[in-house]
Amino acid sequence: MADIHKLEKIAKLIRYWSLVSTTEAGSGHPTSSLSAADLMTGLLFGGAFRFDADNPKHPNNDRLIFSKGHASPLFYSLWLAAGKVTGQEMMTLRKFGSPLEGHPTPAFTYTEAATGSLGQGLSIGVGMALNAKYLDKLPYRTYVLLGDSEMAEGSQWEAMEIAAFYKLDNLVGVLDVNALGQRGETMYGHDLDVYKKRVSAFGWEPIVIDGHHLPQILTAYEQAGRVHDKPVMIIAKTEKGKGVSFIEGKNGWHGKALKKDELLRALEELGPLDITVRGEMQRPDDLKPENRKPEKAKPLSYAWDKPVSTRHAYGTALERLYPQYPDIVVLDAEVSNSTFAEIFKKTWPDRFFEMYIAEQNMVGAGLGLSLRGKVAFVSTFAAFLTRAFDQIRMSQYSDSNIKFCGSHAGVSIGVDGSSQMGLEDIAMFRTILNSVVLYPSDAVSAEKLVEEAAKHKGIVYLRTTREDTPIIYRNDEVFRIGGSKVLKRNTKDVATVVAAGITLHEALAAYEELKKDGIFIGVIDLYSIKPIDVQTLTKAALDTGMTITVEDHFPEGGINEAVRSALAGVPVAIHSLAVRNMPKSGQPRELLDYEEISRKSIIKKVKEIL
Amino acid sequence: MADIHKLEKIAKLIRYWSLVSTTEAGSGHPTSSLSAADLMTGLLFGGAFRFDADNPKHPNNDRLIFSKGHASPLFYSLWLAAGKVTGQEMMTLRKFGSPLEGHPTPAFTYTEAATGSLGQGLSIGVGMALNAKYLDKLPYRTYVLLGDSEMAEGSQWEAMEIAAFYKLDNLVGVLDVNALGQRGETMYGHDLDVYKKRVSAFGWEPIVIDGHHLPQILTAYEQAGRVHDKPVMIIAKTEKGKGVSFIEGKNGWHGKALKKDELLRALEELGPLDITVRGEMQRPDDLKPENRKPEKAKPLSYAWDKPVSTRHAYGTALERLYPQYPDIVVLDAEVSNSTFAEIFKKTWPDRFFEMYIAEQNMVGAGLGLSLRGKVAFVSTFAAFLTRAFDQIRMSQYSDSNIKFCGSHAGVSIGVDGSSQMGLEDIAMFRTILNSVVLYPSDAVSAEKLVEEAAKHKGIVYLRTTREDTPIIYRNDEVFRIGGSKVLKRNTKDVATVVAAGITLHEALAAYEELKKDGIFIGVIDLYSIKPIDVQTLTKAALDTGMTITVEDHFPEGGINEAVRSALAGVPVAIHSLAVRNMPKSGQPRELLDYEEISRKSIIKKVKEIL
Repeated sequence: MADIHKLEKIAKLIRYWSLVSTTEAGSGHPTSSLSAADLMTGLLFGGAFRFDADNPKHPNNDRLIFSKGHASPLFYSLWLAAGKVTGQEMMTLRKFGSPLEGHPTPAFTYTEAATGSLGQGLSIGVGMALNAKYLDKLPYRTYVLLGDSEMAEGSQWEAMEIAAFYKLDNLVGVLDVNALGQRGETMYGHDLDVYKKRVSAFGWEPIVIDGHHLPQILTAYEQAGRVHDKPVMIIAKTEKGKGVSFIEGKNGWHGKALKKDELLRALEELGPLDITVRGEMQRPDDLKPENRKPEKAKPLSYAWDKPVSTRHAYGTALERLYPQYPDIVVLDAEVSNSTFAEIFKKTWPDRFFEMYIAEQNMVGAGLGLSLRGKVAFVSTFAAFLTRAFDQIRMSQYSDSNIKFCGSHAGVSIGVDGSSQMGLEDIAMFRTILNSVVLYPSDAVSAEKLVEEAAKHKGIVYLRTTREDTPIIYRNDEVFRIGGSKVLKRNTKDVATVVAAGITLHEALAAYEELKKDGIFIGVIDLYSIKPIDVQTLTKAALDTGMTITVEDHFPEGGINEAVRSALAGVPVAIHSLAVRNMPKSGQPRELLDYEEISRKSIIKKVKEIL
Repeated sequence: MADIHKLEKIAKLIRYWSLVSTTEAGSGHPTSSLSAADLMTGLLFGGAFRFDADNPKHPNNDRLIFSKGHASPLFYSLWLAAGKVTGQEMMTLRKFGSPLEGHPTPAFTYTEAATGSLGQGLSIGVGMALNAKYLDKLPYRTYVLLGDSEMAEGSQWEAMEIAAFYKLDNLVGVLDVNALGQRGETMYGHDLDVYKKRVSAFGWEPIVIDGHHLPQILTAYEQAGRVHDKPVMIIAKTEKGKGVSFIEGKNGWHGKALKKDELLRALEELGPLDITVRGEMQRPDDLKPENRKPEKAKPLSYAWDKPVSTRHAYGTALERLYPQYPDIVVLDAEVSNSTFAEIFKKTWPDRFFEMYIAEQNMVGAGLGLSLRGKVAFVSTFAAFLTRAFDQIRMSQYSDSNIKFCGSHAGVSIGVDGSSQMGLEDIAMFRTILNSVVLYPSDAVSAEKLVEEAAKHKGIVYLRTTREDTPIIYRNDEVFRIGGSKVLKRNTKDVATVVAAGITLHEALAAYEELKKDGIFIGVIDLYSIKPIDVQTLTKAALDTGMTITVEDHFPEGGINEAVRSALAGVPVAIHSLAVRNMPKSGQPRELLDYEEISRKSIIKKVKEIL
């Protein structure tokens, strides 16, 4: 049993640094840190947490995620108490260039994932726990510190239900019920029974404790370690600002650092402090996952004469490539028979996780898996990826390796109508720092780009089409991120049509029609929208003086604006064919015409220009 | 008590049309429609639902929302049974130009809100119920048909918790537990107890029934009408495809229309049908809300010498304007002391709803409120509006009137760091069809634009800044949607700097510095990013030959790309200063320099160009 007296000293040290660092910074969240100080001290130094701090990436380390990321002063102080951060470093909190940012980021060695947008940590934990239980088959546990206010986020309940469904008994939520949100009391205050009932109803094992009573805290972690087949939620009654009487449990102190005079009063209250005390963490067993040896994937063998949808190619690509990329794991949100992730699932069921209709959690879990070394492919309809934009946004601030696939792009999905049409997804993914945005037009390029995505380190978005489309490329064609394909080119070109996906086929059809009238157009397959092939686009623009972009996407933020940015400074007229009318149900052909992104519209536009 | 026999005939009619219309369309979701046919027949024609079908917008009509929007054949068939849709019209299901789209849209008269992206209907219902109970003070009820698969969506649990918190006993969920999702069994199949426990834990009153037993169904609606202070969830055990033996309860039939021969078999099974049977709906009491008379709002009275943040101006504007726009209602997600929605809340607490940390539900509720005639202002940090992109996206397909305010835009929020920085929000809102995107630079223009937003019919996004910024405009200055302000202009201008929000002040500071060196730049305040002032931008571009955009936003989809699109065809060089480096904690000034969007960077860029 741990030395309670020593743990109390460590908790006091942590309170000290949480207060001092935020006062030095002039901002931060000391009261949110103080409420969880005992919970976290008990976890890291009371014997439950098994972590080799000299090897933070060790595959069998327990994981600690601060879903309530604003408690970063607590987070950094814990690692100071572990001997890994100095007092001098603590004083750089929130300063420009310091790894101790306002909310935890990978700039700080021990951050598992960037947090700070509330309600996302539990999903990341689900990913890490799925990895431990089903993929790496290692005994590490994942602990997630949760705030009570953020339990209002639906994403947390997605994580809850999926964790219970997958029997993640290696996942422990630590719920810091301090009853005060940012602007006032939470909906339930200190009514722990509300949380207990909900947590139980969602299939978790609740353990209710006084969050400032170290013996109870330690017992809770021990109990948690003995629960089988269910995740555990430690529901801890705490006081925001605990340890400093004039802020303890008082509204109005969220996100406020103490002023210097207030700090002095607070430190007086804390009393005598052993500033040198440090805690010991248990070491994990030195276990590593068994890694599958890569074997070369089968090559492509598409026949010229059989159209295949790029969404189908996504599925066959994953299924074919997995042996060569054995870190791949695939997630889908109840639409795998539409995205064709099911093709992968049928052959490699142990590497596939059904995430049900809960896209936010799916993305968070994908992040968690990728942070544990997996190459996470995450799919649903392009339109429904917007459900998880905040999770996608936050994933860019971690060292993530997630490949998103959005199917059913554009109005060309047809009769299902607007709710199912992805029309803003290219814009969404283009905003992600250093993202790769790919939009293959045929099954060959789709499979090749899935492989490029698998090889690439970072966030990739692959947009796929519902309709079967003709094979354009040879099975041995090479596609690279940042490349494009010039499919038609002639010195007589009056314009260059830049398209991708479904509209690339429209452009090729327009080419054939116009040729009959003796009019030639260049056609470029812009399968890599980001990074974009500036060189090829520039050359074509200069040669023809006229660029027409055609996209099954809204006008803003998509292919046209990407091309405009790429052609900055090039003296060329750039025209935009895109979805400008209210989308609706109809046959794909009718809708492409209605939205003026069809072969007819391309022909019309070219003739207009002439 | 209703005539059960007649209701059975109506239910059969509805099954008939659900099957026939989807077979005719060659697509659609008949099995999802059949499972809820009895539930909905009992609701509309069994006496519970009070609706004047000749006045669908009557303020005291009960509301019916199909959260499971794919059951649209059922929805349209119900209105056929009510005598408002003909058989001929049913046969146009999913055809281009028909109001009977694949998922319900406002093209069809009785659609309350466009649905089809699952898990959003309950939030819309929350908005309508809040309206009934607290604003209009009318006795109408809001019924939401829910699928079991979509209860995996976290957004539904946000709606559940908020509905219980606000004691919405005028909200009734009808949960169609047919146990089969799109690609297989749901997580819980027919285990109704799971739903019952969760629903109870979330503070709702559960009523568990056999979803095909009309007497039980009718009793459930009666019971629901007698529950006080809690919303009600009718949990109905159903069979997908009920009524047709070879599809009933069988996997693999989601989203599949019957082929012609299958349809014939199915209709044989349905048996003799009275194709002329129609149902009667109860009429609502002819009650109308008491509308407050508009009174002129107090005018602005900002002093020149006191900087005020635009986020603060958002709050004071709403507070000041409400008497003149008494349909305004304000929602915020636990950050009202940061967005300053709290200023409105203090004066008009009856028109403010705290929505807690649950942005998805907040947006859905805002939609619901706006559909009932309110002007809904919905605020949180710009970054956190990405949490609700799917709800924002769907709201464009309804006749919505929502004004979004995203505060804490950009890196200039400072030390809190990347998780809190809105850097993709302009791109997100620009993709919304017919959206208005506004980004005021000072408190005067912020207040004026809040008023323009209130007057405008449709979706508006207002981006606000954390920092206090100087007052630039006179209190009587006029701002219009689609306008801009030329703040500096000289025939000697070597470039035009186009900026908004915080960077507008950087541009003005750069102007003063450059002037000392005898270099002149034009400065345009692009407070209306969409629609954009093409004319003014074009003139300035032609006059100076050089346009530099500066934005506290990622490069994609924001001000620069909006300006490029606006200046299509204008021979001008356009340069982009935007956030291109990994955002991090730091002082605002440090971050503006680091991201090269500061006055120093503008000066440097201008000198580079020369």
